[in-house]
Amino acid sequence: MFSKILIANRGEIAVRIIRACRELGIQTVAVYSEADKDALHTELADEAICIGPAKAADSYLNVQQILSAAIVTKAEAIHPGFGFLSENSRFAAMCEECNIVFIGPKSQTIDDMGNKINARRLMIEAGVPVIPGSDGALSTVEEALTIANDIGYPVMLKAAAGGGGKGIRKVLSKEELPQHFASAQQEAKAAFGNDEMYIEKIIYPARHIEVQILGDHFGHVIHLGERDCSLQRNNQKVLEEAPSVAIDHTKRQAIGDAAVRAAKAVDYRNAGTIEFLMDESGDFYFMEMNTRIQVEHPITEMVTGIDLVQKQLEIASGEPLNIQQSEINISGHAIECRINAENPAFNFAPSPGKITNLFLPGGGMGLRVDSAMYSGYTIPPFYDSMIAKVIVHAETRFEALMKMQRALGEFVTDGVTTNVEFQLDLISDPKVIAGDYTTAFLQEEFLPNWTPEN
Amino acid sequence: MFSKILIANRGEIAVRIIRACRELGIQTVAVYSEADKDALHTELADEAICIGPAKAADSYLNVQQILSAAIVTKAEAIHPGFGFLSENSRFAAMCEECNIVFIGPKSQTIDDMGNKINARRLMIEAGVPVIPGSDGALSTVEEALTIANDIGYPVMLKAAAGGGGKGIRKVLSKEELPQHFASAQQEAKAAFGNDEMYIEKIIYPARHIEVQILGDHFGHVIHLGERDCSLQRNNQKVLEEAPSVAIDHTKRQAIGDAAVRAAKAVDYRNAGTIEFLMDESGDFYFMEMNTRIQVEHPITEMVTGIDLVQKQLEIASGEPLNIQQSEINISGHAIECRINAENPAFNFAPSPGKITNLFLPGGGMGLRVDSAMYSGYTIPPFYDSMIAKVIVHAETRFEALMKMQRALGEFVTDGVTTNVEFQLDLISDPKVIAGDYTTAFLQEEFLPNWTPEN
Repeated sequence: MFSKILIANRGEIAVRIIRACRELGIQTVAVYSEADKDALHTELADEAICIGPAKAADSYLNVQQILSAAIVTKAEAIHPGFGFLSENSRFAAMCEECNIVFIGPKSQTIDDMGNKINARRLMIEAGVPVIPGSDGALSTVEEALTIANDIGYPVMLKAAAGGGGKGIRKVLSKEELPQHFASAQQEAKAAFGNDEMYIEKIIYPARHIEVQILGDHFGHVIHLGERDCSLQRNNQKVLEEAPSVAIDHTKRQAIGDAAVRAAKAVDYRNAGTIEFLMDESGDFYFMEMNTRIQVEHPITEMVTGIDLVQKQLEIASGEPLNIQQSEINISGHAIECRINAENPAFNFAPSPGKITNLFLPGGGMGLRVDSAMYSGYTIPPFYDSMIAKVIVHAETRFEALMKMQRALGEFVTDGVTTNVEFQLDLISDPKVIAGDYTTAFLQEEFLPNWTPEN
Repeated sequence: MFSKILIANRGEIAVRIIRACRELGIQTVAVYSEADKDALHTELADEAICIGPAKAADSYLNVQQILSAAIVTKAEAIHPGFGFLSENSRFAAMCEECNIVFIGPKSQTIDDMGNKINARRLMIEAGVPVIPGSDGALSTVEEALTIANDIGYPVMLKAAAGGGGKGIRKVLSKEELPQHFASAQQEAKAAFGNDEMYIEKIIYPARHIEVQILGDHFGHVIHLGERDCSLQRNNQKVLEEAPSVAIDHTKRQAIGDAAVRAAKAVDYRNAGTIEFLMDESGDFYFMEMNTRIQVEHPITEMVTGIDLVQKQLEIASGEPLNIQQSEINISGHAIECRINAENPAFNFAPSPGKITNLFLPGGGMGLRVDSAMYSGYTIPPFYDSMIAKVIVHAETRFEALMKMQRALGEFVTDGVTTNVEFQLDLISDPKVIAGDYTTAFLQEEFLPNWTPEN
């Protein structure tokens, strides 16, 4: 096992990784921007190195600085967390070149899955169902029109190198297609230096079902069941749960097998997630693969009892995976609510600032709060607005919802506005209580009828 | 199930009970002393009623005020927590008379087990091994001398109605006995209005092993395995763990069976604990029964997955126990460290005061902090110094120790002195790491060699 690693991230995930390291006796090096000198991850790590100004491009995305920090501190490995450099294959490759272990898959795998057209092709070859659409890059508008006509409108036009919502267009009719094709292509060229486009059928409303997988360096891949992440706003997950009420044992096996096939097709190492969309008839389609730890990983940890960050470290250090698929038991029900410093009453505008008084819910069984906050902490305006994850685990889904209600009811963050009340309202909605929701629910049903209390 | 209950306690256990009620949809009434108007239990409960001045005798032991509060608020039941009125049979009887459910055993059971001579007799009848000693009350010093001679010195002289260390004397030789007998008898008479005495052999050093039991109103009694509470200072538990490294499967069954027999002998209802002492040869002896929830109940919850406070509420409301003995699985290892506002460097003197800055350890898997603190809270000087319980759960004992080290390392309570560093030193001791300790260890081996860092 490593004796020292560097964590190329901030916020709760950096703290989560530091804690996992502590429990394994691994020394930690934090990197921090000038805006994060009082951050908890800076405080908790054994060493902390400033890597630049607040702007992420100058610090948390500053590959040179981060690699230098790792070399200077003699860190044997780098954990990228999620976001920032976590899916940057160039960074992963540079780590490999510097003989520093990148805690994640090989850079080649990130590349393979980063190009969406390539990922689609690999999945088709592996027998994993993909969303009906074009095979390979579209050369012309005419080609796009033909395929769109085959699969039926509306369709989604996507950039092969896409990410962050760039180079993507929803097309309602053939009349709209030529114009969208041109503008999306232009945007993709500007954003990624690659204007390859493809088309996919729109699966909507759907269930967003994702499968957690773990693979070691010896070709052993297992899945840890699914998470239902259908409750989204602007493609951002808001609340996740495991298992999904929409998945029965047979479906779990089928989608789990598909996820394992997907991972094996790219010789996947470390923790990863295969995201699927499941339509109303229960058919599921590969959407994308996230080659990193996910925000919502704790709900899988709660229902399986497996510490995923610990497993990431073990796998990256070369240990064989010491769990068989048959040993994975999904026990009880877990829910995660993402707590953001934002104002739901003002279109969820970010609300950074100083937390003059903090009380995090705690105590009792099956409650966990992953956060990097403390009383008196100032949330900087430069980064993601997620400030905490409240995770509950209970024997039944209903008990988990009750526990979440209890936990959110205790949450206090004087000084900044959060979405805690919004989350409380969400888990009190009859459809959420019944588990009867799709990717359309939050935005099309819940939000139009929701009014903030004050 | 109840719709509203009153909690006749304060501090972390009151908060723990409020949280359990919230998760079951039960309304809560807190009672508080004038010193506790800003306490967390006062804040978190649905209703809160002031029951008198700071002194416990005037508030938390004020039976009239507490019963009035229950009647006024239409609480259907009272949870006494631990300490205060929890083992007061008169209070339990008064609740019964007022048609308010006392969440605990029948008042008669508390009485039966409160008189130690009676408890001994009942246990002998039930076939539960008791510490060698006198049968029934001793009438004269001569009788005491004869019995002490039989069992061999040193012996312990104890008051039948004993508690809180009163009316108890360690007797090293026959020369000392007459004088100690007289003074202990006098003390017992003054403290309890009852001067009945008995003698027991001293089992020391020993393992303090206690067994958690649950019994419903229909004669169904199960045990939930043991806790090892041998790490004590002045008969106060400091660190507890479950399971005990000194207990194997066969012994667990034997001591568990004995505990169930003990509970059945007194028609025990609700949660209770049978405390045993186990000598070096592995023989165990009944010490006493605690007819209430214990401070250290969370470690049993963590290894069994059963919420004991929830079970207390279910049982008290008349529900049959819905778990069979065969369904109880002890999974992994749990440790609890009691965090006290005290100064280990000054003979553990209490250190109440204002917590100017609080950071409770959190996040990750298998960590739980039961506490009633918040940033800015002032710990009043009137009550017990225990301010938090840090509880960890992991697959192995070693992992649990590592997790505890991580958790304690994060703990911050600026403004008050605590025993966190002491606990960190304790869990770093080779003998504690090896699980090789008895009731003698902390006081006779660890403390004489321990020096506070500052």
